[in-house]
Amino acid sequence: MRILLSNDDGYLAPGLACLAKALVQVAQVDVVAPERDRSGASNSLTLTHPLRAQKAGNGFYFVDGTPTDCVHLAITGLLEQEPDIVIAGINRGANLGDDVIYSGTVAAAMEGRFLGLPAIAVSLAGKAGAHFETAAQVTLRLLEKLKPESLPADTILNVNVPDVPVERLAGFEATRLGHRHKAEPVIRTSDPHGNPVYWVGAPGAESDAGPGTDFHAIRNHFVSITPLHVDLTRYTALDQVSAWLRKI
Amino acid sequence: MRILLSNDDGYLAPGLACLAKALVQVAQVDVVAPERDRSGASNSLTLTHPLRAQKAGNGFYFVDGTPTDCVHLAITGLLEQEPDIVIAGINRGANLGDDVIYSGTVAAAMEGRFLGLPAIAVSLAGKAGAHFETAAQVTLRLLEKLKPESLPADTILNVNVPDVPVERLAGFEATRLGHRHKAEPVIRTSDPHGNPVYWVGAPGAESDAGPGTDFHAIRNHFVSITPLHVDLTRYTALDQVSAWLRKI
Amino acid sequence: MRILLSNDDGYLAPGLACLAKALVQVAQVDVVAPERDRSGASNSLTLTHPLRAQKAGNGFYFVDGTPTDCVHLAITGLLEQEPDIVIAGINRGANLGDDVIYSGTVAAAMEGRFLGLPAIAVSLAGKAGAHFETAAQVTLRLLEKLKPESLPADTILNVNVPDVPVERLAGFEATRLGHRHKAEPVIRTSDPHGNPVYWVGAPGAESDAGPGTDFHAIRNHFVSITPLHVDLTRYTALDQVSAWLRKI
Amino acid sequence: MRILLSNDDGYLAPGLACLAKALVQVAQVDVVAPERDRSGASNSLTLTHPLRAQKAGNGFYFVDGTPTDCVHLAITGLLEQEPDIVIAGINRGANLGDDVIYSGTVAAAMEGRFLGLPAIAVSLAGKAGAHFETAAQVTLRLLEKLKPESLPADTILNVNVPDVPVERLAGFEATRLGHRHKAEPVIRTSDPHGNPVYWVGAPGAESDAGPGTDFHAIRNHFVSITPLHVDLTRYTALDQVSAWLRKI
Repeated sequence: MRILLSNDDGYLAPGLACLAKALVQVAQVDVVAPERDRSGASNSLTLTHPLRAQKAGNGFYFVDGTPTDCVHLAITGLLEQEPDIVIAGINRGANLGDDVIYSGTVAAAMEGRFLGLPAIAVSLAGKAGAHFETAAQVTLRLLEKLKPESLPADTILNVNVPDVPVERLAGFEATRLGHRHKAEPVIRTSDPHGNPVYWVGAPGAESDAGPGTDFHAIRNHFVSITPLHVDLTRYTALDQVSAWLRKI
Repeated sequence: MRILLSNDDGYLAPGLACLAKALVQVAQVDVVAPERDRSGASNSLTLTHPLRAQKAGNGFYFVDGTPTDCVHLAITGLLEQEPDIVIAGINRGANLGDDVIYSGTVAAAMEGRFLGLPAIAVSLAGKAGAHFETAAQVTLRLLEKLKPESLPADTILNVNVPDVPVERLAGFEATRLGHRHKAEPVIRTSDPHGNPVYWVGAPGAESDAGPGTDFHAIRNHFVSITPLHVDLTRYTALDQVSAWLRKI
Repeated sequence: MRILLSNDDGYLAPGLACLAKALVQVAQVDVVAPERDRSGASNSLTLTHPLRAQKAGNGFYFVDGTPTDCVHLAITGLLEQEPDIVIAGINRGANLGDDVIYSGTVAAAMEGRFLGLPAIAVSLAGKAGAHFETAAQVTLRLLEKLKPESLPADTILNVNVPDVPVERLAGFEATRLGHRHKAEPVIRTSDPHGNPVYWVGAPGAESDAGPGTDFHAIRNHFVSITPLHVDLTRYTALDQVSAWLRKI
Repeated sequence: MRILLSNDDGYLAPGLACLAKALVQVAQVDVVAPERDRSGASNSLTLTHPLRAQKAGNGFYFVDGTPTDCVHLAITGLLEQEPDIVIAGINRGANLGDDVIYSGTVAAAMEGRFLGLPAIAVSLAGKAGAHFETAAQVTLRLLEKLKPESLPADTILNVNVPDVPVERLAGFEATRLGHRHKAEPVIRTSDPHGNPVYWVGAPGAESDAGPGTDFHAIRNHFVSITPLHVDLTRYTALDQVSAWLRKI
């Protein structure tokens, strides 16, 4: 098996190193990751200027672009052999609920799917980042059992792992994304010249976080596995829109 | 009605001006848009540093951030009154098929939805940008007839308008996103110092572009209206993942 | 006469428009300026990726780069005819004393000089920007009388104009750069996540600002004109360094 | 002695590591360097948003800003104790002749001088970067013999070291900056969408590179030491400008 590994925390992030070390036990691993922390980059793709890829001392490629750029570049020309699967992570911090839309980790996996490959995003649900090893073990176990080719072609797996020792995991759970309340207000402050500047405020509190959601699984120390679309069409609303357009 | 208008081409873009001019006939319009072209920004949100908002001579706010930043900032603190709806556009160029995931225009609408508001992304399907007026008229007509509150809470509308005079429109069609073949390879070239650099290659050719898709509608001069999720959970795959996890 | 006009406040800045309007009365004027505010860019030159130049509705070129990039690009290939002189400005705010080293306006002029042309940087010494017209009139008067070719080849003129009506100017004065006390400490604050961030503090107070300095001239409503090197060699220290190296 | 060490190639650059290793033998060393390669940043200073400083595993601080930002932040608040001297380098590649104005390495040293400290910029004159150790030894030797306090207050030393083994150095030479011919034209090419983009062209060939210049010293395997102003006033042109202003 040949794995393309990327992330959004940058090629020097400990979560990336930890996962790379685990994966080389079972596969050929190519690492192509951003030069610096690009958390929050979402699916942004660089079209305005060309990208550079350099090889670090440890054999990882680093690219002056987004996570999406890294995966795109790797698969469409940088690597000599196409990977069998794309894995993004281990992200430092959870990617749960509504927040996945902003995530560079999830975006890296999505880009793999767009380019025809099975893809998994792996996040460690704890800013402390104490137990990357747990997430690495979980990923190995998923890879061992997973038949990625059996997943629908436009689906990726969003895996969140509790930040606890592996023996304290409660199990695995298939989940849906939970939801948050509206974000907190922006924080208005001033620069030293007295001009107003605005920090994006904190995410809203969890509002839909009961059993079945990824929030709930993590809170109870389950590994949360959420299948995500890469086709954004809301098929169930098509009839409603059609009906409504007939009146225009 | 109070409308928040944004885009990803920047606050000086002709498509934005054209739509603002049309909308003020029917609503209070606040414009908050990026300082410069941020096409391809997707849903990226700026968390690493604070944002600035300035008011241009024409009353538009411009922000040194992404489209998502603009909508987030506007709704969570910059504007005195909350809007009733968020409209993003008129984008110069189509946002069809797989490409919507990269779009800053679609992301601006999504951010509105995350913050609790109905939202529409409007794009003119032609790089020439000859008929923004057509897209503006279409938007007015949708607003007149649309009961946005009747759409599911986690849905936005992705509207693409053919770049033709309004009288040449063939009608309106509810569509699903089409799909493209895998993207073209990156284009490897050199900088003047002989170092390799890589341009992201062209999108793949249309592969799933038959009747019912947005590609097909536009090709036939229909206004294409695609309902999009903002909840990325692939519900139909949940059982499959659950079954599969029982074996782990 | 053919003038290349640039600035660091961006191609939409009122100071640029005001000066362009004045200069077209006496010369062919090409404007090539940054896409957005690049104050503080100093002489930075973009080598890592290619630049784009677009033409705005008013005929100004705007470039996605620094002031130095703009002048470099204009002279080495963008413009069909080489200019006779490079003018940068009118900057909103003074460029006096030690601060000139950070200035994108001064850097734009320097780049002109490096490329073989006489060059002038023009700044309005007042953040209010009330009297750009005064600085425009001053520039015209300098151009009328100036024989730029008579200046030494490695010299540019740094012109600061008091922000007062033209009839309140006290005259013209050749000045040296004044000096400031050490800058104020950085301002340590926190982002919304509790992480420390640092704003660069205010410039130091004027310390060497007596008669003969640019600070003094401006304070007394004189137009301050300071000749600046573009050759940074400190010739007067060469003997000292030589003597000292003999002991190594 | 307490040394502040910075650079413009980024905190992971081998030239920085090599010099840090040498300097700790003789002094307390604080390293504060940019997060990524910022070559060509010149003296640009970040005023529009706050900076972040993080500590890497090896004790180096890295900052999401320019070389000038790093030195400014370090001296005006980040470090608990003020350094006695600022050293920037070892840069990968020469900083000779007219190019010093663009250099982030030279700018880092200048910023130290502005803030009241003696300062030295050290560059290895060879892109191969084969002999950083030579430049480190040269720096140690300069520090041993140098009385930086005896240099004029507005002077820094720009040191370029041939990329050869230390035993092949021909000696030390006090030099002036040489000059180049005008830069080569920009290289016009196209992005994949057919839009024109422009690469800044190569520097001009050496034109003033005879005995006494830094170009000449390096070519002959001498360590080149050029004293540079940080006061840009061209004093020798003041009379000329004064005379000329009397006619206005």
